[in-house]
Amino acid sequence: MSRDDILSELVSGRLRFHELDRLVGVSEAVRLRREALGALTGVGFEHISNSSIDAGGLVGRNIENMIGAVQVPLGVAGPLPVEGEFASGDFYLPLATTEGALVASVNRGCAAIREAGHVKVHIFQDMMTRAPVFRCESLEAALGLIKWVGENFERMKAASGRTTRHGELLRVEPFVVGRNVWLRLGFDTKDAMGMNMVTIASDAICDLVLSENSGVELVSLSGNMCVDKKPAAINTLLGRGKTVVAETVIPERVVSSKLKADPMRMVEVNYRKNLLGSARAGALGFNAHAANIIAAIFIACGQDVAHVVEGSTAITTVEKTDEGLYLAVTLPALEVGTVGGGTRVETQRECLEMLGLAGSGEPPGSNAKMLAEIIASAVLAGETSLIAAQAAHHLAEAHKRLGR
Amino acid sequence: MSRDDILSELVSGRLRFHELDRLVGVSEAVRLRREALGALTGVGFEHISNSSIDAGGLVGRNIENMIGAVQVPLGVAGPLPVEGEFASGDFYLPLATTEGALVASVNRGCAAIREAGHVKVHIFQDMMTRAPVFRCESLEAALGLIKWVGENFERMKAASGRTTRHGELLRVEPFVVGRNVWLRLGFDTKDAMGMNMVTIASDAICDLVLSENSGVELVSLSGNMCVDKKPAAINTLLGRGKTVVAETVIPERVVSSKLKADPMRMVEVNYRKNLLGSARAGALGFNAHAANIIAAIFIACGQDVAHVVEGSTAITTVEKTDEGLYLAVTLPALEVGTVGGGTRVETQRECLEMLGLAGSGEPPGSNAKMLAEIIASAVLAGETSLIAAQAAHHLAEAHKRLGR
Amino acid sequence: MSRDDILSELVSGRLRFHELDRLVGVSEAVRLRREALGALTGVGFEHISNSSIDAGGLVGRNIENMIGAVQVPLGVAGPLPVEGEFASGDFYLPLATTEGALVASVNRGCAAIREAGHVKVHIFQDMMTRAPVFRCESLEAALGLIKWVGENFERMKAASGRTTRHGELLRVEPFVVGRNVWLRLGFDTKDAMGMNMVTIASDAICDLVLSENSGVELVSLSGNMCVDKKPAAINTLLGRGKTVVAETVIPERVVSSKLKADPMRMVEVNYRKNLLGSARAGALGFNAHAANIIAAIFIACGQDVAHVVEGSTAITTVEKTDEGLYLAVTLPALEVGTVGGGTRVETQRECLEMLGLAGSGEPPGSNAKMLAEIIASAVLAGETSLIAAQAAHHLAEAHKRLGR
Amino acid sequence: MSRDDILSELVSGRLRFHELDRLVGVSEAVRLRREALGALTGVGFEHISNSSIDAGGLVGRNIENMIGAVQVPLGVAGPLPVEGEFASGDFYLPLATTEGALVASVNRGCAAIREAGHVKVHIFQDMMTRAPVFRCESLEAALGLIKWVGENFERMKAASGRTTRHGELLRVEPFVVGRNVWLRLGFDTKDAMGMNMVTIASDAICDLVLSENSGVELVSLSGNMCVDKKPAAINTLLGRGKTVVAETVIPERVVSSKLKADPMRMVEVNYRKNLLGSARAGALGFNAHAANIIAAIFIACGQDVAHVVEGSTAITTVEKTDEGLYLAVTLPALEVGTVGGGTRVETQRECLEMLGLAGSGEPPGSNAKMLAEIIASAVLAGETSLIAAQAAHHLAEAHKRLGR
Repeated sequence: MSRDDILSELVSGRLRFHELDRLVGVSEAVRLRREALGALTGVGFEHISNSSIDAGGLVGRNIENMIGAVQVPLGVAGPLPVEGEFASGDFYLPLATTEGALVASVNRGCAAIREAGHVKVHIFQDMMTRAPVFRCESLEAALGLIKWVGENFERMKAASGRTTRHGELLRVEPFVVGRNVWLRLGFDTKDAMGMNMVTIASDAICDLVLSENSGVELVSLSGNMCVDKKPAAINTLLGRGKTVVAETVIPERVVSSKLKADPMRMVEVNYRKNLLGSARAGALGFNAHAANIIAAIFIACGQDVAHVVEGSTAITTVEKTDEGLYLAVTLPALEVGTVGGGTRVETQRECLEMLGLAGSGEPPGSNAKMLAEIIASAVLAGETSLIAAQAAHHLAEAHKRLGR
Repeated sequence: MSRDDILSELVSGRLRFHELDRLVGVSEAVRLRREALGALTGVGFEHISNSSIDAGGLVGRNIENMIGAVQVPLGVAGPLPVEGEFASGDFYLPLATTEGALVASVNRGCAAIREAGHVKVHIFQDMMTRAPVFRCESLEAALGLIKWVGENFERMKAASGRTTRHGELLRVEPFVVGRNVWLRLGFDTKDAMGMNMVTIASDAICDLVLSENSGVELVSLSGNMCVDKKPAAINTLLGRGKTVVAETVIPERVVSSKLKADPMRMVEVNYRKNLLGSARAGALGFNAHAANIIAAIFIACGQDVAHVVEGSTAITTVEKTDEGLYLAVTLPALEVGTVGGGTRVETQRECLEMLGLAGSGEPPGSNAKMLAEIIASAVLAGETSLIAAQAAHHLAEAHKRLGR
Repeated sequence: MSRDDILSELVSGRLRFHELDRLVGVSEAVRLRREALGALTGVGFEHISNSSIDAGGLVGRNIENMIGAVQVPLGVAGPLPVEGEFASGDFYLPLATTEGALVASVNRGCAAIREAGHVKVHIFQDMMTRAPVFRCESLEAALGLIKWVGENFERMKAASGRTTRHGELLRVEPFVVGRNVWLRLGFDTKDAMGMNMVTIASDAICDLVLSENSGVELVSLSGNMCVDKKPAAINTLLGRGKTVVAETVIPERVVSSKLKADPMRMVEVNYRKNLLGSARAGALGFNAHAANIIAAIFIACGQDVAHVVEGSTAITTVEKTDEGLYLAVTLPALEVGTVGGGTRVETQRECLEMLGLAGSGEPPGSNAKMLAEIIASAVLAGETSLIAAQAAHHLAEAHKRLGR
Repeated sequence: MSRDDILSELVSGRLRFHELDRLVGVSEAVRLRREALGALTGVGFEHISNSSIDAGGLVGRNIENMIGAVQVPLGVAGPLPVEGEFASGDFYLPLATTEGALVASVNRGCAAIREAGHVKVHIFQDMMTRAPVFRCESLEAALGLIKWVGENFERMKAASGRTTRHGELLRVEPFVVGRNVWLRLGFDTKDAMGMNMVTIASDAICDLVLSENSGVELVSLSGNMCVDKKPAAINTLLGRGKTVVAETVIPERVVSSKLKADPMRMVEVNYRKNLLGSARAGALGFNAHAANIIAAIFIACGQDVAHVVEGSTAITTVEKTDEGLYLAVTLPALEVGTVGGGTRVETQRECLEMLGLAGSGEPPGSNAKMLAEIIASAVLAGETSLIAAQAAHHLAEAHKRLGR
């Protein structure tokens, strides 16, 4: 088939977009789809076509039916001094966003923290989860399954281990509704965010479960008690990915000079807005705008952007102490990685390199943990700045000046 | 100062990044920051620098401290036949993602729906919100405030109207905790997602409130009953942005042939996973992966990506009927726009053009509504495909094949 | 049949308990059941038989298969000075409980408030709800139903009015999931708690809905968006029964002298326990023990005890002000009445009389509102006392002294 | 002081009610308070005075300022055949309620289950909790505390053991928000519901914690992550008291003959009302009226009635199977006991005796577990009956006939 023939087949729909890669190779397929779409929709795609990332390395792993790339403006905030177990030093934060004032706001938070000292940050738990759901014949069969699980952890771990060199089964927690059983499987996934790894490992574990338990049927490998990309108490309570807390203390004079705010008013904004407001709203998140910072770093660093959902459940606390204004953010579920997924895209890799943590860490897992510590610290900087702005009633002004 | 002097000032931290734009102009500032960062971190930024978007148009409106752009791979799924009040016809869906199999999965859902007929979609409510929180001297002062609000809607509307040509105050709902009062202000924001617009309008309304009510103090212009970018029952119950429902009916033979699944097993996956699993998990979302589709379209189309949080609270229903498998998604809070924000970035604008809805619609608001209808339809396609895959136990296989 | 024959038929199970009333009259039926149960279980029932309430007036209206009465110890706390719109004066609070220290704790709270001044209380909304759920043929049919509802409020109100002299339809709020529609019907039920009234009125409204809308089927007259006796955000946000706020200000010297606590520590207990603790726990209630006080008054005053569920979602706030310690409780959903239900039992009626509000108020509804104001005030007294005890670390001591 | 003098002192408020017991003895104090209240409010209290329970045994342990007793009508339902690990046989259920139709409804459910076979029931976890909250100086101090806890479980258990012969520390789960740490302490409390026991034991544990950890301060012995009498995801996910599941299978002909309902309509009512309705309402409970049955048995059997809050979070499932209609209830948090609290009141004790489980079981704990199994089974009977009534549209009729 000639190029023109292919194009007309594409436009007519007789040839499907996903059949192209095999037919003409990945790069030509990207071009041909774009041209066909152009013919169909009248769009020139001069910018989407301007992509420097290597389609060959992405198609079939990160994307299908590729037609180019979207460009998201990238800003930088910082440096932010961080003192964690894994991240230690000053970091420039890459933020990919189109929300005016966001980079400036995080940057201002960094400046205040810099003047005050640093962020102290700690990871309390690190565990990626998947929770298959089984339908049992009866309550008795459900009991049998749970008993079996209690006695066969090592075998489940071995089955999981045969599917991955990196992942390791850490915990199995059963939950019951009537005759249905969920097994919430928790894994150490080292430097990978790990959803792929744990899905495949869970599949192997399910095979073992099914081969040894009668009266039990697998309904779905993911049973929504994992729970992936839905806001849920199970993740805020039991954690998913990394559970991280970051804190800082800012002397009152720095609150005044750098944040242009009154410390007690910041305490009040946090109390009435982030706590009472969220409580009254029936919210799972008690913060000002954690999702903004997480989304911007996630896009920049090639993370799974839909995981901003779990990130948005952060709790922010602001308290007056003798040393100054104490601020902390608690992130129950931060799912990040430095290998796999979007981290292999060239621009995203450059952002990770800027933080000094692209690829696998040494020891394994340390890079992903370092990334989590930096993100939590950045969220703290962002919360500090926005709460100060709201306390000083600068919010609308910022929107007026920058937002349009 | 010479270029080299500026660079060394930047590297030393004596000159701050945000001071550059005024000093050397936006484009040169982007380059200089990148070079300074390169010197500081040892990263070359050859890809981040490869940006075709116009920094001049973005800096100061969408981004600060810009250093370039991140490229997100863009794929296309569809066409998806949609029959809504605003979107009518076949649409190719732009999906910017690095999650392997996502585009393919949505594409498969589109194929099944195409064969079956189309998606029917409707917007039940369209209202952007902001909820300032006031501290009153006492319960009595709170009562006075609420009474005043009840009697002065038209004046609040007029005050709001003086700040914007496009926005219109639709509703004011007061909420109380002790002596604190939140006014949840709801606006029609036409083709804009509207957060900026409603923040500025709310500021004007607050000025009016404060000038006429004694014993009342504004604590924060945003009091977390808006609620922006936190998962919360108030948004699922009362809506924020667009409240949309999309449905389709797929004959059983199409479920078999296109989705390779058994209809009754799909009903069961939805029942045990999306409903029971989410219920047991204490979730606010009852769906399979709505956030994935929303995130991918949001990045592609220049939406505020952190709003994927609200999108993730969708409820998916799958039911067997005489006509075939009935599937629906209910999105209580979908905040989207076709003007302002990231929609003005060139690549994102091309994606909107591909859908035929860049910029303001005629009548105003119709483009944003059309976009909401298309996104809800895309979510339905994605849910259809993933539930089928889970019912047929293809999930792990997809992860094995595509995900790494 | 002789008495002995009846007894042996009962014991054998050939005669069913519920058939007795008609056979031998209510009072003898109570005795016979008790005797039969005594024969079956070996229990003498000497106390359960010691009931002074009139079985004849209760069987068939409040209870079936009656065998006597359970006695719940009744204590009294107060007087509590209340200044509401309906309740004004000093009230002795009847508390039926077996939880040691509860009456003493509420009593202590009353004493502190008495010394400080009084409780100020206000009802923000008064509306009982029922929410039938309809399955529609399609989204289009659902739209049609909602449109019809928007245009026929007066007719729905008239249909409702034909079933009750007292109830009045106030509002209809539709909610949608896919093709399912809930109509949350809100009624003024005057001095009745009103569940019976609104169920019957809702039935009439459903008949009207079904007669005029095709493609719509009633699935259940109660569709769990009412929502009755399940903790739910819809009730905390939109209210059910009475939405009440009560506040008081206690000078610091009274906090010290009467509550033996430090005001700032009470602020801290409320902040870290009631707000942060509940937030972290994924709770719908942000209080110390509102349910205790509500349960005790509900039993005493013949309220529906299962409604303590809604009552438990209260939010307590404690703040330091120039005038002293400011405390408030916000009860989004307090369902109470002074006619019907358990209010007609003699002991319960005496408790209502003690509060001066048995039976219908003048104007109608004012007695139930007065009861709600008193209960909210009592909850405030209970919260005040327990938070003080926890701040002063007296909790375990109270348990040691009184609880066993 | 003469009796009349005392009375006039009481009426004037110069003598406080709580001072009476020591002055004149418990029984006379009950009478005097009643008389004084009579003088103050004009109520005769002829029924409240008619109490056969022994004030001497209750005052100072279960009640203060006692003035008599409230009588709650007691009905009986059943027998209900239960097959659990602890409860095995046919049970007559004592239900203290004033809600017309409730006993009849549970009774009908029992009848259907009896005809079908029995209830199968199992307890998955049994653990009472208390969660003190500590404020730490810093994140580092919080880390230190958590580390210490991880290494000193046996010593915490020993400290706890010195306060109680019956209770046993089973688990300590730390939770963090910023620098605040909650230790959720889980205990086996045998036949006691256990709140007193665990509060005292927790106090001893806190003493140990404070004596060995610097920079840590106890804010409150109860930090609302216990969480007592507030609806919360932590209890539904991690359990509190007993976590129980009860199931039954009812052949279709029995559904028709005894429940007058169509099985598929019952499945539909559960799906659209209990699952979709509750999901849309932002509810923590997915059932029809579990709280009603729990409240009625709790009052009858001397349980802590405010714990109906936790009971109301049950999940009900109804599914069609080859053997008939499968129904189950899952109760994540059922807090019950057969010793202590209200179980020592004479009428309540008779109710427990009727079930064959008053006092301590052999082995210890078995009576409380048996009670939990019976209550869960009763909830199942109640759900079965009400869902059938709603499926058959009999709800309004029942209200019309019985409710007024």
